[in-house]
Amino acid sequence: MKKAFFDHIVHGGDYNPEQWIRTPEIWDEDMRLMKLAHVNSASVGIFSWAILEPEEGVYNFEWLDTILDKMHANGIDAVLATPSGARPHWMSDKYPEVLQVQENGIRNEFGVRHNHCLTSPVYREKVRNMNRILAERYGKHPAVKMWHISNEYSGECHCELCQKAFQEWLKVEYHNDIDELNHRWWNNFWSHTVTDWSQIRSPKYRGEVCSSPLVLAWKRFVSDSHISFFENEIAPLREITPDIPVTANFMRMYTGIDYQKMAKKLDIVSWDNYPAWDKGNNDYESLETAFVHDVFRSMKDGQPFFMMESTPSLVNWHPINKLPRPGVQQLSAMQAIAHGSDSVQYFQWRKSRGSHEKYHGAVVDHCGHENTRVFRDVTNTGKAIEKLSAVVGSTCNSKVAIVYDWENRWATDAFCGFNNEHRNYLGECIRWYAPFRKRGISTDIIPMDADFGKYDLVIAPFLYMLKNGTKERIEKYVANGGNFVATYLTGVVDKDDLCYLGGWPAEELKNVFGIRMEETDSLPENVKNRATFNGKEYEIHHVCDIIHANTAKVLGEYKDDFYAGMPSVTVNHYKNGKAWYVAFRNDKDLCDDVCESLINELGITADDPDITAEDGLEVRKRGELLFVLNFTDTARTVLLNREYKNVMTDEILNGAVTVPPGGYLVLE
Amino acid sequence: MKKAFFDHIVHGGDYNPEQWIRTPEIWDEDMRLMKLAHVNSASVGIFSWAILEPEEGVYNFEWLDTILDKMHANGIDAVLATPSGARPHWMSDKYPEVLQVQENGIRNEFGVRHNHCLTSPVYREKVRNMNRILAERYGKHPAVKMWHISNEYSGECHCELCQKAFQEWLKVEYHNDIDELNHRWWNNFWSHTVTDWSQIRSPKYRGEVCSSPLVLAWKRFVSDSHISFFENEIAPLREITPDIPVTANFMRMYTGIDYQKMAKKLDIVSWDNYPAWDKGNNDYESLETAFVHDVFRSMKDGQPFFMMESTPSLVNWHPINKLPRPGVQQLSAMQAIAHGSDSVQYFQWRKSRGSHEKYHGAVVDHCGHENTRVFRDVTNTGKAIEKLSAVVGSTCNSKVAIVYDWENRWATDAFCGFNNEHRNYLGECIRWYAPFRKRGISTDIIPMDADFGKYDLVIAPFLYMLKNGTKERIEKYVANGGNFVATYLTGVVDKDDLCYLGGWPAEELKNVFGIRMEETDSLPENVKNRATFNGKEYEIHHVCDIIHANTAKVLGEYKDDFYAGMPSVTVNHYKNGKAWYVAFRNDKDLCDDVCESLINELGITADDPDITAEDGLEVRKRGELLFVLNFTDTARTVLLNREYKNVMTDEILNGAVTVPPGGYLVLE
Amino acid sequence: MKKAFFDHIVHGGDYNPEQWIRTPEIWDEDMRLMKLAHVNSASVGIFSWAILEPEEGVYNFEWLDTILDKMHANGIDAVLATPSGARPHWMSDKYPEVLQVQENGIRNEFGVRHNHCLTSPVYREKVRNMNRILAERYGKHPAVKMWHISNEYSGECHCELCQKAFQEWLKVEYHNDIDELNHRWWNNFWSHTVTDWSQIRSPKYRGEVCSSPLVLAWKRFVSDSHISFFENEIAPLREITPDIPVTANFMRMYTGIDYQKMAKKLDIVSWDNYPAWDKGNNDYESLETAFVHDVFRSMKDGQPFFMMESTPSLVNWHPINKLPRPGVQQLSAMQAIAHGSDSVQYFQWRKSRGSHEKYHGAVVDHCGHENTRVFRDVTNTGKAIEKLSAVVGSTCNSKVAIVYDWENRWATDAFCGFNNEHRNYLGECIRWYAPFRKRGISTDIIPMDADFGKYDLVIAPFLYMLKNGTKERIEKYVANGGNFVATYLTGVVDKDDLCYLGGWPAEELKNVFGIRMEETDSLPENVKNRATFNGKEYEIHHVCDIIHANTAKVLGEYKDDFYAGMPSVTVNHYKNGKAWYVAFRNDKDLCDDVCESLINELGITADDPDITAEDGLEVRKRGELLFVLNFTDTARTVLLNREYKNVMTDEILNGAVTVPPGGYLVLE
Repeated sequence: MKKAFFDHIVHGGDYNPEQWIRTPEIWDEDMRLMKLAHVNSASVGIFSWAILEPEEGVYNFEWLDTILDKMHANGIDAVLATPSGARPHWMSDKYPEVLQVQENGIRNEFGVRHNHCLTSPVYREKVRNMNRILAERYGKHPAVKMWHISNEYSGECHCELCQKAFQEWLKVEYHNDIDELNHRWWNNFWSHTVTDWSQIRSPKYRGEVCSSPLVLAWKRFVSDSHISFFENEIAPLREITPDIPVTANFMRMYTGIDYQKMAKKLDIVSWDNYPAWDKGNNDYESLETAFVHDVFRSMKDGQPFFMMESTPSLVNWHPINKLPRPGVQQLSAMQAIAHGSDSVQYFQWRKSRGSHEKYHGAVVDHCGHENTRVFRDVTNTGKAIEKLSAVVGSTCNSKVAIVYDWENRWATDAFCGFNNEHRNYLGECIRWYAPFRKRGISTDIIPMDADFGKYDLVIAPFLYMLKNGTKERIEKYVANGGNFVATYLTGVVDKDDLCYLGGWPAEELKNVFGIRMEETDSLPENVKNRATFNGKEYEIHHVCDIIHANTAKVLGEYKDDFYAGMPSVTVNHYKNGKAWYVAFRNDKDLCDDVCESLINELGITADDPDITAEDGLEVRKRGELLFVLNFTDTARTVLLNREYKNVMTDEILNGAVTVPPGGYLVLE
Repeated sequence: MKKAFFDHIVHGGDYNPEQWIRTPEIWDEDMRLMKLAHVNSASVGIFSWAILEPEEGVYNFEWLDTILDKMHANGIDAVLATPSGARPHWMSDKYPEVLQVQENGIRNEFGVRHNHCLTSPVYREKVRNMNRILAERYGKHPAVKMWHISNEYSGECHCELCQKAFQEWLKVEYHNDIDELNHRWWNNFWSHTVTDWSQIRSPKYRGEVCSSPLVLAWKRFVSDSHISFFENEIAPLREITPDIPVTANFMRMYTGIDYQKMAKKLDIVSWDNYPAWDKGNNDYESLETAFVHDVFRSMKDGQPFFMMESTPSLVNWHPINKLPRPGVQQLSAMQAIAHGSDSVQYFQWRKSRGSHEKYHGAVVDHCGHENTRVFRDVTNTGKAIEKLSAVVGSTCNSKVAIVYDWENRWATDAFCGFNNEHRNYLGECIRWYAPFRKRGISTDIIPMDADFGKYDLVIAPFLYMLKNGTKERIEKYVANGGNFVATYLTGVVDKDDLCYLGGWPAEELKNVFGIRMEETDSLPENVKNRATFNGKEYEIHHVCDIIHANTAKVLGEYKDDFYAGMPSVTVNHYKNGKAWYVAFRNDKDLCDDVCESLINELGITADDPDITAEDGLEVRKRGELLFVLNFTDTARTVLLNREYKNVMTDEILNGAVTVPPGGYLVLE
Repeated sequence: MKKAFFDHIVHGGDYNPEQWIRTPEIWDEDMRLMKLAHVNSASVGIFSWAILEPEEGVYNFEWLDTILDKMHANGIDAVLATPSGARPHWMSDKYPEVLQVQENGIRNEFGVRHNHCLTSPVYREKVRNMNRILAERYGKHPAVKMWHISNEYSGECHCELCQKAFQEWLKVEYHNDIDELNHRWWNNFWSHTVTDWSQIRSPKYRGEVCSSPLVLAWKRFVSDSHISFFENEIAPLREITPDIPVTANFMRMYTGIDYQKMAKKLDIVSWDNYPAWDKGNNDYESLETAFVHDVFRSMKDGQPFFMMESTPSLVNWHPINKLPRPGVQQLSAMQAIAHGSDSVQYFQWRKSRGSHEKYHGAVVDHCGHENTRVFRDVTNTGKAIEKLSAVVGSTCNSKVAIVYDWENRWATDAFCGFNNEHRNYLGECIRWYAPFRKRGISTDIIPMDADFGKYDLVIAPFLYMLKNGTKERIEKYVANGGNFVATYLTGVVDKDDLCYLGGWPAEELKNVFGIRMEETDSLPENVKNRATFNGKEYEIHHVCDIIHANTAKVLGEYKDDFYAGMPSVTVNHYKNGKAWYVAFRNDKDLCDDVCESLINELGITADDPDITAEDGLEVRKRGELLFVLNFTDTARTVLLNREYKNVMTDEILNGAVTVPPGGYLVLE
């Protein structure tokens, strides 16, 4: 697989010159300012349909010709967007079917963005046609280096076209066997038996909301609709511009699309990164962001991704939009690169003057000039990343993986029972990720159907649902010498939220873990319970399984309630490997203590063992470079046990080095 | 009235064999397990319409024949349900009118349960037809001992059929006199005068929400619709199987149906009991549950009821579903029996494998075998209650009554004024119930149109609305020597929420209580005020009346604000009786202190005066048996002042006996 | 301009005799009681349409004839209402277009009040016709002294008639230039370009919600619809009864109508005053109420207004309706008069017996007689205000103005960015008003297009949006020697929420204030920052601008974060005046300290410098009378530095005088 599409780190961002078409002198000013800011790329055409095709079949490309020519003349690459994120007015006026329909059956009016039906044949055809024209016109333009498909795909529609498409999708999914669907959806419950595919409708408050398999099927269908919509978009691009890579910008951990599935269709993954810096919890923000970077890096086997958007200062859509402190933007850019990004891109180059996003941070403010703190910061970042071209295309080689699976997220959100208030699948995965980040051990974040074999350790928190083949793959991994950690509520249901009979975890896994689960308890805030691991005591939070150890060795036990004395943590030697079961949840130290124990037992080492970092520093190796990032409010010390070169200053460092608050080092 | 339909306590629960129709070997296993668990009954056919009539007019009874035969062969009685709680798909496909319409006028799609129009002639006819066929086929089956009508009636519909039915209902209610309706609804206000019955529509956010008499009329209509729907259901059963008793399972204090009115149509009342055990407040849970048991026992003059559902472990629909501790299920069963239940039934026998309720507790778990804590607990309960057959059909003879009236609940929820935030009619009734439960004095909970004459003491908290004749009946009761306690906001309006003129309480009651009320104050949390009763001081919570004592004797007074010194509690000697007025609300000790005073003054004694129980124990006499229940977390002592036999052990007890936490005694 | 329409203070309130038409003896009793209560006016006909025109074209005026005759015979003046606040049933039955349509496109049913389409030609014609008939019949009736138009105009409609009217309104507003609209609404953003006026629809969740200029335009349109609806109502009245003044009762700071604009169409402004007395924060309630009085007094250049509604005891629509203490109602009446009211009117004279407002306080309670605390209090108020006729028509002459502008309220609510959670434009204006009220300095509250020239000091908090001409008028005011105070986020956008380019504040204002703003920070609760003014330190709340002083003098600076040391407060000498910029928000002392500094510097004096009042007293001069009001819970002292006459007692006072809690003095 191709690893890099550029030979330098891309620096730029969203650029909407059409907003300034009445004052084209600003376009020239933009070119001057981009060069001043060490910007080498701009993403154009996003949401531009109304100006590209002002009337049906009437096209207006002059402005874009001009811009692309200017960009090329000034050495600025173009990421060219397809405009499908919003539609011109004439389209919904003439073809109302392109607009979304809400759960109540009422069709939306024109407005906002992504307000379209993914199924609509008209809209798919219009998009394909527009993309073909764009590819034909600009496919050979020397500025154009990448396709940016639409913008932040999202949403769903309940129109009759979508109902029909959903029914057709179900026919395929269930092999045209409606009895099989009835069985797997347990439709004898509440007389829900369907006798014709047309009886199945999208889940909705005024219809069916209580059937979790229906909810899961609908989520899969909507996700697949996005993917097929994407395939429809790129068909003409693949045909006409096969050498221009295609990306689509993802939104953090957005649950509406299975990004792990969709990533397979992209040449390069990109995502939009908006942490809430400086609102009092940078520790957690930087942890979660590190996790998300690793999610996207892991999507295509470690292939570098793009950070397609980030803000050069603040955003406008948080309840309270704090200004991040100077330097945080650069530190955040370094974190992205350290985790595998080949770009640092902003939303947006120039602040729009009106409408909804005019107070979202931008490189160029409403004042229009370069004499601002933000412009200077961006320029500094631009200069700094020019020194990091060496990492482009490189990745890291993780020996540890955390399983985070989009479909399991859906399943853990959809079921009704146990601790309905505190599901928090994502948070649990991040909690198990933290101990490795803290110790400078790179970690992949993978779906449950990824290859486990290459890892020394796989941790799958709250793996409630098992896709087809998963339990067999876990068994094989452990049998072959793998180390697998599972937690409470593992292996409860199959892909249709249908419980495994014979008790949990599902049959094959009972042997792997050497346990069987009998009941699951959930704790309100005011009811306390405790459990131990390796002799240390923890408060139980939210949920715990009551398990019996068959062949497993007991590593801890419950202290209170009627299950006091029963196992809380176990390990089982299974064939050539080991399988741990952590039966309870704890918000504080448990994950760190368990992971420390695992790291010691399995001899897992930091990516660069020659460096010892004070707590609070993030140390990350990518390619030949080592990044040391300080997201805390105080200076921290890193101890170098050999000579390193400071890439930014060419200074040779050794021994104790101080990293200022909000600062970083890049070492070679 | 027939008091008992069985000669033993029914032990069993909801059973859905049709969910396992692909694996009929499980049916035989169920028979084996039921006998093992000392289960003697199962409720079948609930929600089974889709399998009973898979196509319109095509019936499939083989599975049910088989099950009923198996049950009979194994000594398991059947409670046979009508399947109207959900409909098969074909029905709403062909007759959309059977589906509910929401307030916005949009018809629901197929889904969930109880999603039907109560008015629909089609649905009523389909139900009648199905029930006739069931009665004809199974009316003589030896296993069938009771009819279970539908399941947990609930919901409302705003379709045009319902609008028309509502208008017809109003014509009857207001004697076809639209001027009278205008007067009683005070329709000159805001030009709301109606000139034709067709102008009156169900209350809704996009129409009329501010007319409390409309809201009350709609609630009465919806409740009556459920009742007439029920009558339609049972018509063929009464005709074909006149000897099989009919029940319908009620949902605790659900406000959508006037259960006190509907109970008259049932042969036996049953209800579904789901306290939130072990979430930190068992004291209150057991109090409220005791109250609710007494509500249902009082509905048919003390006739025993059925606890049709309860969970053998946890439920799945609470926000956080704690596992109750072992023994609580049995203690809870004993409480039901102590208060008048002739059954201990569970939802559900076997956990469904999929869909919405798969994590609701069941006797048989997904593991499928009997080697679970829950199965063992249920078995123990089954054994224990076999020793209690003596109480079947017996009741208790209360000398104290609390008035809780469904229509007054509607009225206290519907008006706009005073303390809109803290109405809490139910909570206030429970507060006045607690002192009697604590002292082992059995209490009936009655509607305002019940017979007061048989009680030594009647307490009617917050009796805001008076139905026709109520004030005359109170007067007569007190005049004849009764003792009546009323509180703040008593006798304010008549049944249409129309205020009595001349000031409150309504004219006849001013003499009974010897007071007149001038104003009502409501207190925000941060504004404190105090009042006394018998010299002790209380903080006022939420609400207080400012009253003038005419002939009444003042027992306490306000301490603060401009009404300091005015009466807070009064008593009036009226003819041969006495009438108390407690003008303020207090969450803590007030009710207990007032009741203690009343108990002493009126010489009310505990049901069994030979027993002295430590605080926290519930002591309850039913028939010849005495139940001592300990819902607390610590051992408590009961002092027996004579010899009793421990029914469970046949041991003879006397003097101080310890009841362990979560434990109980049954004494004879 | 005519300043007074009566020669005495009007004392009376809403009166609905039609609610008692079945018992006309109550009408005579009302006359007796009104005289007893010193009531000299009653507002009749509000919501009476159903009885005035029971069938289309069939009128029933007898009851109103009778009432008006009785009133006249008893010396009670009539404020005669048009009945358009609610419609009779027949109208919406026959002409459904008169009913409102909600955002989802579903038409409302009949119900509540104000549930009509403002655009509907039918409704406008029906209203005009009804008003014409009323004017013809009652225009010469000697009791009728004033027209009361409808009641509390409010609401909006999304029907197709309104969509069309909105589009026509936009054509006028944007001079039929759709390109100009596209530019000013920045419609190139998200492909929102419109090519036909018919494409623009009301903002709504299922359509466009993110376009702030659309939201602002819609608010202006709805407000203008109310105004043109009002003009339609009064057209026949102006024609037939040109000498009878016209009013409409406003609702405090209701944002749905630009009252400052609508006031121009009224002969006299009136408003409904419902503070939440005695719920623990009378300090703030009396402050906010004082502010609101001054808002309405300022609407017509200081012309006295009417307090058209207030409650003689409690209301029924607060979550918790505390009884105000005796005397508060009178104190509140005095506050109204002190601030410019020529009336003290109540909702309502007699409590309605049923429906929604039956528990709203009234002069005559359900008991029907005069022997109540409330009736006595009202009587005392009636007597007291009879002594204050001297102030009728008088006003005060403020040298200080606070800018509160309805359109700026809309703009500050509509934008997305910075501190979305804490906008609070009204609260900020009240905060800047408080220091002047505390010091007995009368203050006008004016829109941004009022005349600044007559004030010594103008304070415009959070003047985010500038209407056309505003920045030029500020410049001129300061240039001519005025003193102007602005705060954070001033001069950011023009009337279409389109940002000024070149940075903020808008170009002309940069010179006036001698600063330029670079960024705006917003602070979550847990992030603290400090700033100084005149050496004193304040905590920053919610928001602060980061500004650069050009010519301005720096009066304070930030203490923390990366902008520590930058200016927090500045003053600039500009031509003959001065302009202050307070760059941050603080909830506590900042406004008071800044204002004290300004008062000292500018030599602003109290309205009556011969009086020194203890903190917590409100001192207010109107005409020749001085009002001293004590809203606190304790006695406070006022020091009179010369002789005054106590108007209530004719006593001569001098030196220290005690005002009891809840008491007041009127001095001459």
